[in-house]
Amino acid sequence: MSSCGFSTCTLPETLQSRELICNKPSCISKHSKKNCISADLSHLKTSWQRKGRLRCQALDVESNHAFLKGEVFQLDDVIEAQQFDREILSAIFEVAREMETIEKKSRGNQLLKGYLMATLFYEPSTRTRLSFESAMKRLGGEVLTTENAREFSSAAKGETLEDTIRTVEGYSDIIVMRHFESGAARRAAMTANIPVINAGDGPGQHPTQALLDVYTIEREIGKLDGIKVGLVGDLANGRTVRSLAYLLAKYNDVKIYFVSPEVVKMKDDIKEYLTSKGIQWEESADLMEVASKCDVVYQTRIQRERFGERIDLYDEARGKYIVNRDILHVMQKHAVVMHPLPRLDEITVDVDGDPRAAYFRQAKNGLFIRMALLKLLLLGW
Amino acid sequence: MSSCGFSTCTLPETLQSRELICNKPSCISKHSKKNCISADLSHLKTSWQRKGRLRCQALDVESNHAFLKGEVFQLDDVIEAQQFDREILSAIFEVAREMETIEKKSRGNQLLKGYLMATLFYEPSTRTRLSFESAMKRLGGEVLTTENAREFSSAAKGETLEDTIRTVEGYSDIIVMRHFESGAARRAAMTANIPVINAGDGPGQHPTQALLDVYTIEREIGKLDGIKVGLVGDLANGRTVRSLAYLLAKYNDVKIYFVSPEVVKMKDDIKEYLTSKGIQWEESADLMEVASKCDVVYQTRIQRERFGERIDLYDEARGKYIVNRDILHVMQKHAVVMHPLPRLDEITVDVDGDPRAAYFRQAKNGLFIRMALLKLLLLGW
Amino acid sequence: MSSCGFSTCTLPETLQSRELICNKPSCISKHSKKNCISADLSHLKTSWQRKGRLRCQALDVESNHAFLKGEVFQLDDVIEAQQFDREILSAIFEVAREMETIEKKSRGNQLLKGYLMATLFYEPSTRTRLSFESAMKRLGGEVLTTENAREFSSAAKGETLEDTIRTVEGYSDIIVMRHFESGAARRAAMTANIPVINAGDGPGQHPTQALLDVYTIEREIGKLDGIKVGLVGDLANGRTVRSLAYLLAKYNDVKIYFVSPEVVKMKDDIKEYLTSKGIQWEESADLMEVASKCDVVYQTRIQRERFGERIDLYDEARGKYIVNRDILHVMQKHAVVMHPLPRLDEITVDVDGDPRAAYFRQAKNGLFIRMALLKLLLLGW
Repeated sequence: MSSCGFSTCTLPETLQSRELICNKPSCISKHSKKNCISADLSHLKTSWQRKGRLRCQALDVESNHAFLKGEVFQLDDVIEAQQFDREILSAIFEVAREMETIEKKSRGNQLLKGYLMATLFYEPSTRTRLSFESAMKRLGGEVLTTENAREFSSAAKGETLEDTIRTVEGYSDIIVMRHFESGAARRAAMTANIPVINAGDGPGQHPTQALLDVYTIEREIGKLDGIKVGLVGDLANGRTVRSLAYLLAKYNDVKIYFVSPEVVKMKDDIKEYLTSKGIQWEESADLMEVASKCDVVYQTRIQRERFGERIDLYDEARGKYIVNRDILHVMQKHAVVMHPLPRLDEITVDVDGDPRAAYFRQAKNGLFIRMALLKLLLLGW
Repeated sequence: MSSCGFSTCTLPETLQSRELICNKPSCISKHSKKNCISADLSHLKTSWQRKGRLRCQALDVESNHAFLKGEVFQLDDVIEAQQFDREILSAIFEVAREMETIEKKSRGNQLLKGYLMATLFYEPSTRTRLSFESAMKRLGGEVLTTENAREFSSAAKGETLEDTIRTVEGYSDIIVMRHFESGAARRAAMTANIPVINAGDGPGQHPTQALLDVYTIEREIGKLDGIKVGLVGDLANGRTVRSLAYLLAKYNDVKIYFVSPEVVKMKDDIKEYLTSKGIQWEESADLMEVASKCDVVYQTRIQRERFGERIDLYDEARGKYIVNRDILHVMQKHAVVMHPLPRLDEITVDVDGDPRAAYFRQAKNGLFIRMALLKLLLLGW
Repeated sequence: MSSCGFSTCTLPETLQSRELICNKPSCISKHSKKNCISADLSHLKTSWQRKGRLRCQALDVESNHAFLKGEVFQLDDVIEAQQFDREILSAIFEVAREMETIEKKSRGNQLLKGYLMATLFYEPSTRTRLSFESAMKRLGGEVLTTENAREFSSAAKGETLEDTIRTVEGYSDIIVMRHFESGAARRAAMTANIPVINAGDGPGQHPTQALLDVYTIEREIGKLDGIKVGLVGDLANGRTVRSLAYLLAKYNDVKIYFVSPEVVKMKDDIKEYLTSKGIQWEESADLMEVASKCDVVYQTRIQRERFGERIDLYDEARGKYIVNRDILHVMQKHAVVMHPLPRLDEITVDVDGDPRAAYFRQAKNGLFIRMALLKLLLLGW
């Protein structure tokens, strides 16, 4: 029951006078959110919807079990990949498996009937939005949509994110937010009295993508310890590969290969982090050789928007490492090709028909992970 | 049973040949809408949904009880604040209170199950749209959304509003319309055979905002007669303060203070209207003094878009009257600060934590008012 | 059981290794979609939703009964007007009639409860989108919406339509697609394992409009054989009149009159097609005379966007043939005026009130046709 890492945050004045009832035996029975900063924050967030239940903000829980409440984990917001440890990941994946069954077998599930999700997207991301909205509706929940909140109304008039959140939380039970600014999701979660899921905040985090990537590896390979993963393509700018490397470091005997054009190499911070966690990693210029050894070849798109005027550099980079049938040929029978999508031509279409092409299954897994998170945030474990 | 004020309108030819059955004892049993213009219009609108029931257009009913049908009020469209008198407001507020209970206690209410609301927004207003859509979904209804109807398809090709309404009414049970042209909602209501709610028509009306403002005052202060209200900020352009002044004139012993920069003073028409209704009003340059006397300090945003090139005037105006902790300090214990939102810095964020900061509760009240109106328009009293 | 006309198509590699179980007695019991190209394709499409059921692509079935399965028709995608013959049209219209009853009598029908429709619109078409979404919701189904998929995210980054479809089919049960490219719907249908409905693909097809037009004629006139139809306005560019002419050719003793400005005359391909089918047609410059003889006067909008800089030609063309009360005056009592909407001034508003003005009823029929198609594609006959 260590601190949730909130100690340096300034709590909004709004919360000062609001009293919270705590149902945790070890806790003083009545306190304000502010008074609790140096104590246990895992039970400090009330929800209008579920009076009497206490909920944990859980923004930074890597080194503790803030999720643990009684015998079960507690999950209140999904802000960044770092908030999850092995145990939580494993527990979430178990729920995701149940969601696969629900999606396939029971039409018209009503688990989240009467719940309302607001998708507050400050920049468009049709794929992510549809995935979340499908997840909510597959569980019988309802959705309020803003496809492009940035151009629209209040934000355009200069309203702060905090004010928008305070209004939207009055209309819904959970907020799924996409924002162009790093850190926006954390700010939203600190403001909101209802759960917030980060659906990507600028160059920052996209934690549900990271979760579905790890879930896909476990589903496809059958394990996470002892695996070999090749990360290919734009390793400098792609937040998915960075988050994935980070999460893989939580498992044992993992070996990571970085295969990328010189201009978009993996940055030192991740390399140092992996080393500090005892994770083996290696850079290679030989995709064929790496592919022959790996359980997972994780290809990514070279992001043209990062190259500005240097079209020549972009063209050189994007043609360098292509996953095609030759690569498939050297890959092991049980290995898989993954990709966060959208892809351009970094995986040739003749790979799609091979059973080892896992990227569309991976996209589908995003649905199950999001169903699981919605269920956990709204109903608990 | 006076005229509904339709006598100067030209009714569309479409309606000429359609016969209406009237269930009002005092009325000729069969007549066309056109023949009734000089008679009582309160029971002239049929709905495909509720055959045999007669419904009132009620566009201008200030001086009569066109809403009254048998022992209960009749409500068919919500077009402008002027259509409501004390009795109707009071009756609507009672339903809004029931809606608070429904929203808080019963998840998955099904009162409007099977009903379909079309939100036809010709200009974006995310906040208002989400509030209406949440209201509909909280009652189990469904929604068809157009976030920016103006750029899109039919309207862009030159279709009239009337034709659009005739098409959309075939797909839905109620239309919530936001438009950039004053009077558009009234035109829509005259065309539609289903209820229309005006969610703002340009510089014209935004009646649900006016209703939620008055509802909030009653909820927060406990009464509407005998109150003192300070209207602060942009009184020349803000339609909310104009509508609010108008509605407050329906109550007894109300005193209104206008506090605004010189360039955006309240216009004479409202002042003359208040005087004609026996409402006391006063202009003041001393926000501190006004705040100390009022039950409600209603702050508004200085609208930059109204100043064009004159940034200097805008900057001067917007810094002049700020609600901050000093203002709170002189306010009475039971008084509240209101704001239609979005706010910029005309209320400082350190006010938010004070129990007298009512603006987010006010936004939430918009949900209850809209739930009440949807219930009343679709199911009746 | 002739070929479905797929023999020239290249099937995506993805499908090679997937085995399909066929429940058609005349068919080899197990085969891949690819092996079947030269055989019967009518039973080659599996759906994740309905395991063990086999579904027909039915992209080109004019000359056969690929829809026929056992004793009933089989419908798997709606791609172009040509896929329907008299029997199928008649069967669909029968279901549409049932849908009229459902829409009018039973609020909250749950026929499609638990089904999820994705409206993937690459160009905006508010009217068509709302019609489909209303149809889905009137039957208790749910909707995922993209109002402007073209500008957004994945497509903007260069993702192929096929990849988008493979992702979206993981989130939904049926895809309704509007696209700016002719042939896009067919490509989507070939990729998807769930049903696809073409809601218009560029200058190509808009089959649900064609269906609702024919359905409206049958509802209004009471028959399709032996009718006289005047097609008026922009016959060169309007895809609705072209599709309508095509479908009318399936009926007996039909007579078609073309009335259009010289610059937008009906093209030769349709005239030749009609002649080859034994359908009488005639060009006329006298709308009054044609109107007096026809059962249906089908007016269309002159599309300004087709005239580019030649505003003079446009203005001349659009004023030439107007349906007004003079035209009504010579029309027969049982005849009707139709229009695909939106209209500008090619039908004067004083026509709207006449019982023979069928265009808003026609728009409403679009709802019933779409309800019928959604029911047929998701639940079968």
